[in-house]
Amino acid sequence: MRIEGTSDNESNMSEAAQTDPLVLFMPSGKRGRFPVGTPVLDAARKLGVYVESVCGGRATCGRCQIEVQEGSFAKHKIVSSLAHISEKGPKEERYEKVRGLPEGRRLSCSALILGDLVVDVPQDTVVNAQVVRKAASDRVIERNAAVQLCYVEVDEPDMHKPLGDLDRLKVMLEKDWGWKDLLIAPYLIPQVQQILRKGNWGVTAAIHRDMDSSRPFIIGLWPGLKNEAYGIACDIGSTTIAMHLVSLLSGRIVASSGTSNPQIRFGEDLMSRVSYVMMNPDGREAMTKAVREAVNGLIGKVCEEGGVDRHDVLDMVFVANPIMHHLFLGIDPTELGQAPFALAVSGALQYWANDIDIDVNRGGRVYLLPCIAGHVGADAAGATLSEGPYRQDQMMLLVDVGTNAEIVLGNKARVVAASSPTGPAFEGAEISSGQRAAPGAIERVRIDPETLEPRFRVIGVEQWSNEEGFAEEAAKVGVTGICGSAIIEVVAEMYLSGIISEDGVVDGAMAAKSPRIIPNGRTFSYLLHDGEQRITVTQNDIRAIQLAKAALYAGIKLLMEKQGVDHVDTIRFAGAFGSFIDPKYAMVLGLIPDCDLSEVKAVGNAAGTGALMALLNRGHRREIEQVVGRIEKIETALEGNFQQLFVDAMAMPNKVDAFPNLATVVTLPERKVVSDDGGEGGGRRRRRSRE
Amino acid sequence: MRIEGTSDNESNMSEAAQTDPLVLFMPSGKRGRFPVGTPVLDAARKLGVYVESVCGGRATCGRCQIEVQEGSFAKHKIVSSLAHISEKGPKEERYEKVRGLPEGRRLSCSALILGDLVVDVPQDTVVNAQVVRKAASDRVIERNAAVQLCYVEVDEPDMHKPLGDLDRLKVMLEKDWGWKDLLIAPYLIPQVQQILRKGNWGVTAAIHRDMDSSRPFIIGLWPGLKNEAYGIACDIGSTTIAMHLVSLLSGRIVASSGTSNPQIRFGEDLMSRVSYVMMNPDGREAMTKAVREAVNGLIGKVCEEGGVDRHDVLDMVFVANPIMHHLFLGIDPTELGQAPFALAVSGALQYWANDIDIDVNRGGRVYLLPCIAGHVGADAAGATLSEGPYRQDQMMLLVDVGTNAEIVLGNKARVVAASSPTGPAFEGAEISSGQRAAPGAIERVRIDPETLEPRFRVIGVEQWSNEEGFAEEAAKVGVTGICGSAIIEVVAEMYLSGIISEDGVVDGAMAAKSPRIIPNGRTFSYLLHDGEQRITVTQNDIRAIQLAKAALYAGIKLLMEKQGVDHVDTIRFAGAFGSFIDPKYAMVLGLIPDCDLSEVKAVGNAAGTGALMALLNRGHRREIEQVVGRIEKIETALEGNFQQLFVDAMAMPNKVDAFPNLATVVTLPERKVVSDDGGEGGGRRRRRSRE
Repeated sequence: MRIEGTSDNESNMSEAAQTDPLVLFMPSGKRGRFPVGTPVLDAARKLGVYVESVCGGRATCGRCQIEVQEGSFAKHKIVSSLAHISEKGPKEERYEKVRGLPEGRRLSCSALILGDLVVDVPQDTVVNAQVVRKAASDRVIERNAAVQLCYVEVDEPDMHKPLGDLDRLKVMLEKDWGWKDLLIAPYLIPQVQQILRKGNWGVTAAIHRDMDSSRPFIIGLWPGLKNEAYGIACDIGSTTIAMHLVSLLSGRIVASSGTSNPQIRFGEDLMSRVSYVMMNPDGREAMTKAVREAVNGLIGKVCEEGGVDRHDVLDMVFVANPIMHHLFLGIDPTELGQAPFALAVSGALQYWANDIDIDVNRGGRVYLLPCIAGHVGADAAGATLSEGPYRQDQMMLLVDVGTNAEIVLGNKARVVAASSPTGPAFEGAEISSGQRAAPGAIERVRIDPETLEPRFRVIGVEQWSNEEGFAEEAAKVGVTGICGSAIIEVVAEMYLSGIISEDGVVDGAMAAKSPRIIPNGRTFSYLLHDGEQRITVTQNDIRAIQLAKAALYAGIKLLMEKQGVDHVDTIRFAGAFGSFIDPKYAMVLGLIPDCDLSEVKAVGNAAGTGALMALLNRGHRREIEQVVGRIEKIETALEGNFQQLFVDAMAMPNKVDAFPNLATVVTLPERKVVSDDGGEGGGRRRRRSRE
Repeated sequence: MRIEGTSDNESNMSEAAQTDPLVLFMPSGKRGRFPVGTPVLDAARKLGVYVESVCGGRATCGRCQIEVQEGSFAKHKIVSSLAHISEKGPKEERYEKVRGLPEGRRLSCSALILGDLVVDVPQDTVVNAQVVRKAASDRVIERNAAVQLCYVEVDEPDMHKPLGDLDRLKVMLEKDWGWKDLLIAPYLIPQVQQILRKGNWGVTAAIHRDMDSSRPFIIGLWPGLKNEAYGIACDIGSTTIAMHLVSLLSGRIVASSGTSNPQIRFGEDLMSRVSYVMMNPDGREAMTKAVREAVNGLIGKVCEEGGVDRHDVLDMVFVANPIMHHLFLGIDPTELGQAPFALAVSGALQYWANDIDIDVNRGGRVYLLPCIAGHVGADAAGATLSEGPYRQDQMMLLVDVGTNAEIVLGNKARVVAASSPTGPAFEGAEISSGQRAAPGAIERVRIDPETLEPRFRVIGVEQWSNEEGFAEEAAKVGVTGICGSAIIEVVAEMYLSGIISEDGVVDGAMAAKSPRIIPNGRTFSYLLHDGEQRITVTQNDIRAIQLAKAALYAGIKLLMEKQGVDHVDTIRFAGAFGSFIDPKYAMVLGLIPDCDLSEVKAVGNAAGTGALMALLNRGHRREIEQVVGRIEKIETALEGNFQQLFVDAMAMPNKVDAFPNLATVVTLPERKVVSDDGGEGGGRRRRRSRE
């Protein structure tokens, strides 16, 4: 066998090799010459092409399916034909009869190479775009799962060679599959004897090859052929726990679901949960129990949905923010509530699922991504893995907006990270008419700059508020409040239409122009909707949004200063919030720095996608462990100029920063200073010239 | 620094090195030159001389004590003087004041080299001769325990470098002690934070460097300096569980004790326990529970005796015969009760103590030596490690006599092993007047070949039965039966005095000569003692002993044939039985082959000694794992000539084998055939010439 490069220099080849058939695997493009009669699976293995196989070439598991592409591939100088692969033999025919083979599919363990071939390895690993929101494209995660199923036939006991049952099993796993120095999960030791006999000496072992101990482990053992194993990727958020159930053999997402984090009953936000631990002697234990129960419940839910026995779940990857991470592991999070925000543990961790009361297979393993810093958790590490700023040359800004915004900025050369205390305003809390995204919530807002009249969309209603039939439909769900995405839009539109100044003050003078500008004590509000519920945007609401967006922007700016850049090339919004807001409005409001709008993308639960990547490919675990080790962590509170950056960022979009890209798509208002406290913000503009 | 050989060729040394002081460490003899001012501990480390240290050179643990030997050591060309070592500094003086230092002892971490020195490293590791019976000599086990205590001072948390508490602990353990890629016992993860703060960032970590996973593990963590750690070596016998409690830091045996194996209530011998498992659905579980409880109880006992908190036990080594081994681990032993006697597992195993319900430190580890074969267990492996036939050129026979005799024969070149079903006769069972070794039991017997009158000793009585004062003393304890060692002696003496023939038949004709030969149905008995209890040796007793010794001898012969030898150089009797029998009588009876009597030694609980070696030196674990892999196992039942060897061995000492060494110290009777079944044994003698 000779492995060829992609370049076509076949001149160096020996006569013998020249006559061997050439096989090209797609989509990897790996190619090589193999003697006539070589099984396609062997050729794939030798070239390092990933083809699953559980039965080890016995044509019983059906996992090693491939397809031959017929035709003349001029570029590769290959004429591939079905005549160049052997007919189905009796084993493969038996498999087809019993289990069925899709049209065109062959078992690569049984199909022999007879001539030049282009072989397609079907990719069942596309991540479902609806599950993991990807603005860009569906993603193919190269598979290299930590768990592999290996069927072996073990020698029967022999008095002359009194090796134990387990020891003979290990011998065969080394002989057939190459596993050296195998260890075994202790719980299995008393079962080996019976499982071997029940399987009539044919058994399937689940090998975990990514144990923190470096040596491969037998974590599961079944009599006969076991042809399916599952994994779980889970993001434990403060509010929501999200989970994917995945086939470790095909890479297919079997089910995805989410549930509320039951810790909410101990405190809505992270800090109130830390307080609960500090105030209640059993608080930590109760919250650990609650989140583990919720995870177990959610495992039950995804398994039921996918028709999977939870005991077939063998590997799990978790991401979480630092406080959730600690509580999940039974670690007191009190230290995270105060400076210096010391993590009890920051590195990646592994457990037996059973060690932390997670009910899956008794030998199931748990991997947790590393935390980046006290407020930049394993979830941020997951998002970083998913979006990969460190894999590219462009300067990428990755923000995950929640109660704490986690911010990562970088490229191949250098990555910096920080968190910024945005507070819950973006989630609709602290906003007078704020509410969670649910039917009845206003989700989109436009304001006519001439008339100052609004039009809006409500969740659960097809029409905009100015369209025919809206009133009828809206009556069914009600118009009950403003959700996070609409808060951004309404404040941005208020700014664009001149209702508020760049400093965020509602201009009382506009009351003369529109009855929607209404006095509210010493300040003014904007009346967005006057129905059963009167929905206004108050001066306080605007201040809350300003504080939140200024915190986020100042954090971003701090990282940009660390990187020595005055703009970013691309922006990724992770998290649910990012999926619903319009990047343009986020920029008008100055949540994010100026950027080509086509380079601003929402990437959904990127943390969960990162967990999924680490689940399906253990190489990604090493990758993120190394990357996190390299990320420079910035503690915003310790940076001398954070306060100034924050104050500048209170203005819309910003007191000092220009937004040239934004200006090409939106006409930003003339600067207009309307102060509610007599202050005059323009003075700070001079700061820029000093820098 | 220059490490010198033991030869004195200093001619090659450079000028600089020549002027450096020469330091010689005893008893290892390792030597080297070090610059003036080098701490003695550093010199030891560089030479690979084992000196314990927990505090890492802070002069607080006191573990690194050494003594300077004063005088002129002509052989080594060293004049060693107390003037060649620095005076005690303030740290060492503080230690001496607080904790005390024995006269002449110095802390090697603080004492600096000023001139040539001969340094004695005190060996506290001598295995107590009374605990581990060693006919030969006390043994020094070179120390290399799996667990090491390491004190470190960890950096306080820093917002700028947000590494977790655990991660900073690892950094310091690598920096100060060189531990790379450390893992941690999961149970500790939630505790790290608090322990670090409680110790004001100074903590002692217990590092286990012999995990089966290959990577070192933090298994324990204490605030401040933790200066003691213990280990347990345990032999789980069918009848008795024996245990040593050892300081892992000094190697000192703190306490030794034993307890009955409570499984006795399920069956006296191994096979009856296997039957119990087969007959009772919960039998395996009940026996596992019983033995684990007994082990836990015994741990409590040795810890109480040694004044040690059981939670300070961090490492344990177990040996056991295969059935005890399986039951202890919760493995069904049924397969061991029938051919092919399949072990569920034969290799060495490791566990968290907690995994198998052993109550020591939560991070305590358990190591089990490998089993050699279905009837040659980890106990035989322990005895093999202790006596080391594979370490020497002589052909060594190692026998552990119990209900099953475990036999190992070999030398450097090759080791073979087998078990032989001797039955319980040697332990006094199946013998009419047999009893366990206890006060009142006859333990020594001599018979006058002229008068056939016996004299004997009774356990608990100083005098021999023919000495003055015996009757008085014996009245206090009674004369209640014959223990194992005396059974050997009385039968051997009966043979030497002509009462029985070489075929073991009591010669009725002798009744004319002595009233002690008394008829008993169709056979005759020998009246050993006629007191409150009438103690006789019946024809059946002799048959039982013959069957037992023939089984043992035939097994030995089989191994000798495999090795192609007709004699052995040295014999080791392991086990309690071996400690009490007189090798001469064992040879007269033909339990063991002919050998120079000075080369026959009882070695006590060699299995336990092997466990102790594996506890104190992890190198011995690798050693025995490799050796067991090389040992050739012989299944006696499968060997065609076992039956013939067995029949030959029924005779005393043997029908066909000569005992030239024995003949030099004992006058063996003329061959005399007295058959009770008309057979004539002499015919078989011809077999020898055929071989």
